[in-house]
Amino acid sequence: MLSIRLGGKAAGRQHTLYAIKSHQVRGAAQKVAFSSTTVASKEKVVILGSGWGGYEVLRGIDKSRYDVTIISPNTYFNFTPLLASCAVGSLEYRCALEPVRRYTPQVKSYQAWCDAIDFKSKTLTCMPATPPLPFEKKPATLADVTTTAYPGTGTPFQLPYDKLIISVGAYAQTFGVPGVKEHGYFLKDVKDARSIRTRILECFEQAAEPLLTDDQRRNILHFCIVGGGPTGVEFGAELHDFLQSDIRKHYPHLATLAKISLYDVAPTILSMFDQGLMQYAEKTFKREGIDIFTSHHVEKIEAGKMHVKEQGEVPFGLLVWSTGLAPNPLIECLTEVEKHPKTGSVITDGHCQLLMKGSTEKSAASDEKPDPVPNPDVWAIGDAAMIQGVMLPATAQVANQKGKYLVKKLNRMLEGQDTSAPFKWRNLGTLAYVGENQALYDRSKSAGGPKPKGAGRMAWLLWRSAYASMALSMRNKILVPTFWLVNWIFGRDLSRF
Amino acid sequence: MLSIRLGGKAAGRQHTLYAIKSHQVRGAAQKVAFSSTTVASKEKVVILGSGWGGYEVLRGIDKSRYDVTIISPNTYFNFTPLLASCAVGSLEYRCALEPVRRYTPQVKSYQAWCDAIDFKSKTLTCMPATPPLPFEKKPATLADVTTTAYPGTGTPFQLPYDKLIISVGAYAQTFGVPGVKEHGYFLKDVKDARSIRTRILECFEQAAEPLLTDDQRRNILHFCIVGGGPTGVEFGAELHDFLQSDIRKHYPHLATLAKISLYDVAPTILSMFDQGLMQYAEKTFKREGIDIFTSHHVEKIEAGKMHVKEQGEVPFGLLVWSTGLAPNPLIECLTEVEKHPKTGSVITDGHCQLLMKGSTEKSAASDEKPDPVPNPDVWAIGDAAMIQGVMLPATAQVANQKGKYLVKKLNRMLEGQDTSAPFKWRNLGTLAYVGENQALYDRSKSAGGPKPKGAGRMAWLLWRSAYASMALSMRNKILVPTFWLVNWIFGRDLSRF
Repeated sequence: MLSIRLGGKAAGRQHTLYAIKSHQVRGAAQKVAFSSTTVASKEKVVILGSGWGGYEVLRGIDKSRYDVTIISPNTYFNFTPLLASCAVGSLEYRCALEPVRRYTPQVKSYQAWCDAIDFKSKTLTCMPATPPLPFEKKPATLADVTTTAYPGTGTPFQLPYDKLIISVGAYAQTFGVPGVKEHGYFLKDVKDARSIRTRILECFEQAAEPLLTDDQRRNILHFCIVGGGPTGVEFGAELHDFLQSDIRKHYPHLATLAKISLYDVAPTILSMFDQGLMQYAEKTFKREGIDIFTSHHVEKIEAGKMHVKEQGEVPFGLLVWSTGLAPNPLIECLTEVEKHPKTGSVITDGHCQLLMKGSTEKSAASDEKPDPVPNPDVWAIGDAAMIQGVMLPATAQVANQKGKYLVKKLNRMLEGQDTSAPFKWRNLGTLAYVGENQALYDRSKSAGGPKPKGAGRMAWLLWRSAYASMALSMRNKILVPTFWLVNWIFGRDLSRF
Repeated sequence: MLSIRLGGKAAGRQHTLYAIKSHQVRGAAQKVAFSSTTVASKEKVVILGSGWGGYEVLRGIDKSRYDVTIISPNTYFNFTPLLASCAVGSLEYRCALEPVRRYTPQVKSYQAWCDAIDFKSKTLTCMPATPPLPFEKKPATLADVTTTAYPGTGTPFQLPYDKLIISVGAYAQTFGVPGVKEHGYFLKDVKDARSIRTRILECFEQAAEPLLTDDQRRNILHFCIVGGGPTGVEFGAELHDFLQSDIRKHYPHLATLAKISLYDVAPTILSMFDQGLMQYAEKTFKREGIDIFTSHHVEKIEAGKMHVKEQGEVPFGLLVWSTGLAPNPLIECLTEVEKHPKTGSVITDGHCQLLMKGSTEKSAASDEKPDPVPNPDVWAIGDAAMIQGVMLPATAQVANQKGKYLVKKLNRMLEGQDTSAPFKWRNLGTLAYVGENQALYDRSKSAGGPKPKGAGRMAWLLWRSAYASMALSMRNKILVPTFWLVNWIFGRDLSRF
């Protein structure tokens, strides 16, 4: 009723201001009123996070029959495989984004962090991820905000749920190395890609200052990547292409002073690939002049230099850090759920249903660890979760497939059916770009007989066509190839802003 | 010779790192060496600034026969008429940019501020506009940096010139109103456009927080524009379109609470237009629900509210300030040149040649103000300069035409000719977008008989086609219409990052 009154009032006010459009406004206000009266009969599904898992659920869930809310600190989904391209300007940032707002107002969306989950009362406490409002003198607190997972930025609010999907993902792992957050760049979000692109161009403008020696220039133009997984390798490859094309063309002297180095504590890079492909990547990088330092340990990072156990002090202009995942603060705060002792992820059953710790009363009698109990209303997918006893890689592919699985499950529940089999991962293979229009493609580790693998230009064409066709919106299906074409013809834009 | 040695050394080092490409590298190094040996015979032309004047000179000057250097704190030229579109996402930022580096290495480019000009020794002192380098413990200073126009950000350097073009533009005028810089947004640079777009979307995400009252939401969604010139009006128009299309679609309830207000101290907006067109613009804005407050005085701006003399406290979510121009700090520091007492611009003769103050020795005898003397090696164009006795508007058109005039003059000088007539402005008319696919077009104030003027949809088509065809690079000639089309079909992107 409240909503109807507000809608009517707003439409009335609007009438005087936007007289010409009042019929449209009244339509919109009625729609709000309509949805608020029918909401009661729909189950409230809340999705936490807008990554590969959460966004997939958002896309597929039957929004006409569920009352869907998404809570995410980002207003968009990151198409992560294209971030390395965005970080050097091969693609523009928005090509790698899909806005969450595409589904509003049918879906409710809050740009906020979920700060606490009360599984008993089925209530979430959320903190706006926007700056505090001018009339909020200091961050307000609710009496029942018991965790401090995120710094308060505004007025926290509470939301009830009937069904909850936890897909909050993971944070970047720093292994406690000092200075990573202050002086390194991650590559998990489009904001990171933008910072990196700006910093690369800044390095070249700094190195172009006339009073420097070439040794000083070499230090500024040393680009270090820590972490030899697909993200680190693809960024190295994209950066190499950028240096060899546009930078070489417009800063020819500086291009000869630039250098890319890839560090990893492991003895090899790209360990998820077939050994032949791994060697192909290493050989390609060597030919491209990218130094690979495996079995090297970065101990400390300061402004413009890092300390490597095997090398001592190493100066750099840009350091990109991608060494794996650390638990999300929300997950760290959950005390009633089962967690993996090493990764800190929550544990689910084979149906992605969250496993709660068993009742301690029962266990006190039997003196054994109580059996975990699946929570019938909560599912957890993506990098924040793992299935009990099943070790799947923490990749976009797994998160996305779990999202698809949940969509099917939730939509079937509406028909009163919930007989779907447990989640089964179908390994679609792994792709990695290694520079100079060459990529790796590996399905050899997929189940069910011998599968293709390969490396080279054909794999690169596969890489490009796979990601162009995977772009979720028609908008990006047009923009991604347009930017590839425009940048291929005219070169990447070198403006820094 | 130094350059040859470094080039050789670099190529040698490169040889081991990028073995496969060594022939290319050697070519590039030779090119550097080659240009350094031929430079001596060329005159050094230094361009200060990469705006409408400076960038035009950069484009047109004969770079094979002049040794050209451009010094600008930006690595790009801002195509300013498209910034209002960029600020609401009708176009992407890079569509309104042309990189200065397009002309490197043929042209030398430094991302720096010119901090001081020594007209006697023909030397510039420049300060890098990039952050200080890690090994620069504190901003270094040269003994001969006598001005403090810009905060030191690195190691200042000096550059000699034979010919100098001053086209540094002007800063935003705040008329000493407190809080403008802290709480307002300008719209002079692509960085401003990006901040504004991010802030608009943030306002809607803030207003979407569930615990707010609709009155609080109205405050956050009040968009104030101070300044009724073309920039302010076009931004208001673009914002209106954005609110009525994408915002109305995805935030229907909030769209009805949003409001645009335009403030100006003058009794009318768009005073450079014909009176009929002025009234057309006011009528259009009224129909669009944009409130116009002319003869209103903004006295103070604080976080989330401003004080207006005629209205008292006015809350807002976003305030865009575009009330005119203030002198550039470099211009303020020049003491030996003639300046306009009111605008603070430097004065030039009819050939855009900078006027130096006359010798004081002579005047001491005659007790009269000495005649100004044109500096034969220095020209000043754009918003930082004006021709003695001629009051031209401080617009892109004038700056650009002066740039073209200088190009012709400088290129003719190479032939030993310098007989060109004084600069004459050709008024090509004024365009302004007023929203809902309507624009104003006015050539009625041009010289030479009755000229066309008009308003409406045809003027809008003229607006679009004029700016699409004026895009300087082929890249932007493709991208600008692509984004117009993509955003027309799919709507503007609502991702905030």
